[in-house]
Amino acid sequence: MTDPLKTGATIGILGGGQLGRMLSVAASRLGFKTHIFEPGANPPAADVAHAVTTASYDDEAALRAFAATVDVITYEFENIPTSALDLLDPLRPIRPGRRALAVSQDRLIEKAFLTDLGLQTAPFAAVDDEVDLAEAIEEIGTPAILKTRRFGYDGKGQSRLKSADDAQQALTDMAEAPALYEGFIDFTHEVSVIGTRSLDGQVSCFDPGENVHRDGILHTTTVPARLTASQRMDAVLLTAKILNALKYVGTMGVELFVTPTGLIVNEIAPRVHNSGHWTQNGCAVDQFEQHIRAVAGWPLGDGKRHSDVVMENLIGDDMDRVPDLAQEPNTALHLYGKAKVKPGRKMGHINRIKA
Amino acid sequence: MTDPLKTGATIGILGGGQLGRMLSVAASRLGFKTHIFEPGANPPAADVAHAVTTASYDDEAALRAFAATVDVITYEFENIPTSALDLLDPLRPIRPGRRALAVSQDRLIEKAFLTDLGLQTAPFAAVDDEVDLAEAIEEIGTPAILKTRRFGYDGKGQSRLKSADDAQQALTDMAEAPALYEGFIDFTHEVSVIGTRSLDGQVSCFDPGENVHRDGILHTTTVPARLTASQRMDAVLLTAKILNALKYVGTMGVELFVTPTGLIVNEIAPRVHNSGHWTQNGCAVDQFEQHIRAVAGWPLGDGKRHSDVVMENLIGDDMDRVPDLAQEPNTALHLYGKAKVKPGRKMGHINRIKA
Repeated sequence: MTDPLKTGATIGILGGGQLGRMLSVAASRLGFKTHIFEPGANPPAADVAHAVTTASYDDEAALRAFAATVDVITYEFENIPTSALDLLDPLRPIRPGRRALAVSQDRLIEKAFLTDLGLQTAPFAAVDDEVDLAEAIEEIGTPAILKTRRFGYDGKGQSRLKSADDAQQALTDMAEAPALYEGFIDFTHEVSVIGTRSLDGQVSCFDPGENVHRDGILHTTTVPARLTASQRMDAVLLTAKILNALKYVGTMGVELFVTPTGLIVNEIAPRVHNSGHWTQNGCAVDQFEQHIRAVAGWPLGDGKRHSDVVMENLIGDDMDRVPDLAQEPNTALHLYGKAKVKPGRKMGHINRIKA
Repeated sequence: MTDPLKTGATIGILGGGQLGRMLSVAASRLGFKTHIFEPGANPPAADVAHAVTTASYDDEAALRAFAATVDVITYEFENIPTSALDLLDPLRPIRPGRRALAVSQDRLIEKAFLTDLGLQTAPFAAVDDEVDLAEAIEEIGTPAILKTRRFGYDGKGQSRLKSADDAQQALTDMAEAPALYEGFIDFTHEVSVIGTRSLDGQVSCFDPGENVHRDGILHTTTVPARLTASQRMDAVLLTAKILNALKYVGTMGVELFVTPTGLIVNEIAPRVHNSGHWTQNGCAVDQFEQHIRAVAGWPLGDGKRHSDVVMENLIGDDMDRVPDLAQEPNTALHLYGKAKVKPGRKMGHINRIKA
């Protein structure tokens, strides 16, 4: 058992995007410093970090120097190269651990892990070639979606099949990457649970939020979500089951489809999650702080919701709305300080407090 | 009229203590960078700032270099040497402006300013020597308090007189500094109003908080404060009067004594204020963000209180309570990352959300 980190300790964060930025702010509230490791120059997290290393994930000297200045290592995205983790692992604790990353970095392993736990997922099959795809279409049917097993996010690396006629196009879209064929789910809406597990196994989940996507990117999360009491209980229990099975340490996002026959797990993200941003203005302790508490070996905080919130992402040109949004009643702005506006780029979000 | 600052702009902050730290975090939420200027090494604000200059306020080259990298200058404490302000003033806008600093840096000028506005203050007299003091005691009576006109905070630079017998000791305590003799006020409790004025004259005040002090240092602030509807209105109106009279830009703290004959202004602080820390967990937009919005030329946000809050300061050894406080329900921790615990030192605060 490790002692909890003390005021002044440094938390190393792999990745310097907006999640790293908000993790850094949460760390500061608990008296910790952060050190960001990020290949890109001037990342959003650098504005609020104690130290920043700008280096590639295959720069071994930079990784070693980074590890030497931090007490524990965490990350803000799941696609960290394995070689970097191999190098860092013996030097400092990595939280959440390698198992959570291994599971979530590969959609096939993730689906197998979830079904082994007894949880419902969409029907799926591994697709490495034309033959696999034909078999998957035969078995699971269409419409369906073909996804790369690794490195996909926000709808990237995905191809939809309306019918078997789309098979060749879908294979081309995968560019020979190992893929996963997923049947469609007839769901009424999507919710997500943001859960955290501490180093000593304590689990705490925020109230589930209801997600609406636009163009494959999260548009809004509304709390409370439309769920019956028993669905709400199911959602929290299955999240706890996933966290415990992985001996997870930190905050995780679990996306769920709500169907007449129960909750179906869409995917898990081993990190703080966009659909948990509402917690910044709805709870005394938000998802970022829960994550920092967990990786620092602290007890979890009280994630009880004190207000209803609607979170809305600001994507690309939504930044033009900021002067108006800044004057909306009961609305909290969270901008990421990104210099360039690009279509589809997450530039910030707002939390509208409803009650 | 100046254009509002855009995402990526840099706000220079004179002073790197906990107030600068929390201003920096608020600036990040609006997409701004901060640059801290602070003589002491490793100040709390440095952990969450984009850039830090460690230099004395009489280092002209450092002040010029600082000004060159920022778009606007603000400060987290009122005792900035005039020479530094003289140098910076022509280089970049300083907000709040010089007048607010001049008034609040000198207790005599402050009292005169407030009474000129028609506001009630404690009876006062300037004391430069023994003769002045004898006259003041004669006119105002005892008990009373003798305070240095400049550079006092948290009860420092003050001497209490129970009777005229304490006159010599009080003069000795002043060490020949120009002083102010202040009569005691028979008040039931102290409240404070945190108000903000924007560049275009919009004024917004948070709900008044009720303050309890211990050993001359703020102990708790509770919102809502015990005030009648008309007292509450008075408190907000007189704060607006002060802000407008100073053509103030930014957040100010106004301490008020509640008496049977009305509200008496104790003192004003031309900066974010300890008694406004509750806003971090009680409002969509807190006092730090209101300040940043004002100095950035933005419209003010909605400072409506969504929850009742009790803020408690963590002073010195209160840090030993952090492991317990971290597990309290509905409680938000805010630690300042200060390496050394000292008696009387502000190490952090908690906000207990009550409803």
